Amino acid sequence: MLYEINEKAIRLENEGKKIIRLNLGDPDLATPNEIIEAAYASMKAGKTKYSSSYGESKLRQKLAELHGVKAENIVITPGSKWGVFATMYLMMKGGGNVIIPTPYWTAYDLIAKSLGAQTKLLRTEMENGWKVDLEKLEAMIDKDTKMIILNNPNNPTSKVMDTETLDGIVEIANKKGATILSDEVYSSISFVKTKSILEYDGDYTHILTTGFSKTFSMTGWRIGYVVANKQFADNITKLNQITINNVPVFIQEAALKALELQKQLATKIREEYEERAKMASQTLSKAGFSFTKPEAPFYVFPKCAGLSSEKFTLNLLDKGVVVAPGTAFGDYKEHFRISLTAPREEIKKGLEIISEALQ
Amino acid sequence: MLYEINEKAIRLENEGKKIIRLNLGDPDLATPNEIIEAAYASMKAGKTKYSSSYGESKLRQKLAELHGVKAENIVITPGSKWGVFATMYLMMKGGGNVIIPTPYWTAYDLIAKSLGAQTKLLRTEMENGWKVDLEKLEAMIDKDTKMIILNNPNNPTSKVMDTETLDGIVEIANKKGATILSDEVYSSISFVKTKSILEYDGDYTHILTTGFSKTFSMTGWRIGYVVANKQFADNITKLNQITINNVPVFIQEAALKALELQKQLATKIREEYEERAKMASQTLSKAGFSFTKPEAPFYVFPKCAGLSSEKFTLNLLDKGVVVAPGTAFGDYKEHFRISLTAPREEIKKGLEIISEALQ
Repeated sequence: MLYEINEKAIRLENEGKKIIRLNLGDPDLATPNEIIEAAYASMKAGKTKYSSSYGESKLRQKLAELHGVKAENIVITPGSKWGVFATMYLMMKGGGNVIIPTPYWTAYDLIAKSLGAQTKLLRTEMENGWKVDLEKLEAMIDKDTKMIILNNPNNPTSKVMDTETLDGIVEIANKKGATILSDEVYSSISFVKTKSILEYDGDYTHILTTGFSKTFSMTGWRIGYVVANKQFADNITKLNQITINNVPVFIQEAALKALELQKQLATKIREEYEERAKMASQTLSKAGFSFTKPEAPFYVFPKCAGLSSEKFTLNLLDKGVVVAPGTAFGDYKEHFRISLTAPREEIKKGLEIISEALQ
Repeated sequence: MLYEINEKAIRLENEGKKIIRLNLGDPDLATPNEIIEAAYASMKAGKTKYSSSYGESKLRQKLAELHGVKAENIVITPGSKWGVFATMYLMMKGGGNVIIPTPYWTAYDLIAKSLGAQTKLLRTEMENGWKVDLEKLEAMIDKDTKMIILNNPNNPTSKVMDTETLDGIVEIANKKGATILSDEVYSSISFVKTKSILEYDGDYTHILTTGFSKTFSMTGWRIGYVVANKQFADNITKLNQITINNVPVFIQEAALKALELQKQLATKIREEYEERAKMASQTLSKAGFSFTKPEAPFYVFPKCAGLSSEKFTLNLLDKGVVVAPGTAFGDYKEHFRISLTAPREEIKKGLEIISEALQ
């Protein structure tokens, strides 16, 4: 439903209709000019050829330093989504099941289904601060469980997992021999400290996927990376060789430039989104929605008792605002997701239309 | 073996060794400047966001005109390899077999194996002009056969399929209900006219994959496309949504610019490679290799009775020339593939080293 609504919004825009886009985690902020110039310089320097399916050495080296791992643990991917797909493809192809706490990012479930893997959904509730119940998790793991997918900070709730819960999940996973895939794509711009899966793991049993999209407003550039043990990194590279081959080198060099600017850019983005989250929280509270306070960009996941979110979403699209229905993230039909990824004036107008639509 | 040797060559280069690279179909010619400028202008104009998993409307429309199909039949992919993978993923996931004439491009076989599909290899021989035996093909098709993969012009032989044989293959495929995946990535720069699978097919039973890499020296940009019936194009788009999401819009706009320059660029590239093929043919004949005359860029696939191609290739790599062993393209250990994708002086030197190594 998430992608269908997006394609419909694109069609309406192509027909000339003005749509306020609050449906995707696609920052309105432009890619910083230094990054664009780095890509251009790289193209001009002839970095337009096939290259290694591992990714460029310099970029892998730099990322290894940032994460305290070795370059051999890093594989560059066309977006963090490719990292998730590739990991699941390699682990789930032979069958088995994957445990996914909900609400979840749609793609996890769609990928699992596409691969013929079974998904076991572990429900969390707004009323309980979106906490994973460790006992339920442990009981859910069976002999066919291969993976647990964490999204920390979470899309759509913008909740950062508390350390105690994360410790507990890792302990259970280690005990039961399940691999954690930790998607931390919002982590470096979260409003509160987010503990990484890499902090646990000397042997890299678990796998980190992340990317440049969110931190550097580079969504459309399609660049991310996986951190894993060498064997698994080699296997992802082999999959890259028969699929995407490589991320364009000029895009990798732009990403390298982005890392140089990380401190300054991440702070700016974090501050902007914290302001937006504050603004949205005020309007939505006033309108009578309940939600947990966002601890990271870009989302709020409000609830309204009795709401039918798909109907509500289609109705909003007719009014010129596109959001994502709660059902795109699991069994959450009383919720919907607002992405605060438009200029403030548009968000404001969008929130007004949303508040009116509730009446 | 193809990719392993390439990664080894990259490692040697990173160590500072000079390697003459005749192992990949990666043109030494730079991407034309107009294309780079188009990408830059597009980035500057903010085309750095998520976009449709079908690809950009304008590009699809333009490609549809070129091929005489509708825009709904076109899906933009990150390289033609992704088009091949996506097609095979969608068709072969449930099992079955795929028929591949050999010598073949390595990726077809690796993709089939990765998907757990069975491959049935249909051998063709240099001595017979690399002709597909239609009777053998028909006999090979069984109830589990889902696809036949054609690569026309062929990598590694640079042979264009004669019309009579292609007619015969299509007739057999239609009769037996097998889908042809026709990889025509070398077609628009071939030295002789290549008949496209699209010329047969009012209902798009069959599938075309191709790309911008070879025609426009854009290998590292990763952009190609699939032409298929609407239903199949929709399914590839759904796979794009959970994997690569989209090809960067600025790369798609660069490709659109490339199409404007097609006539002039393709002619230039064709002429350059025809010259190189002539030069290589002379040297290799003199050295005692047999081969068929290249009818398309970029390859020659010489044979030498008694050769052990992997040993020969590793030996050449030590001497500073990298080629691809015949075994990377099927059971052709007396062959190896030379890519004429280096500056003429380098090719000349490479050919000398190859000729000496034979002695």
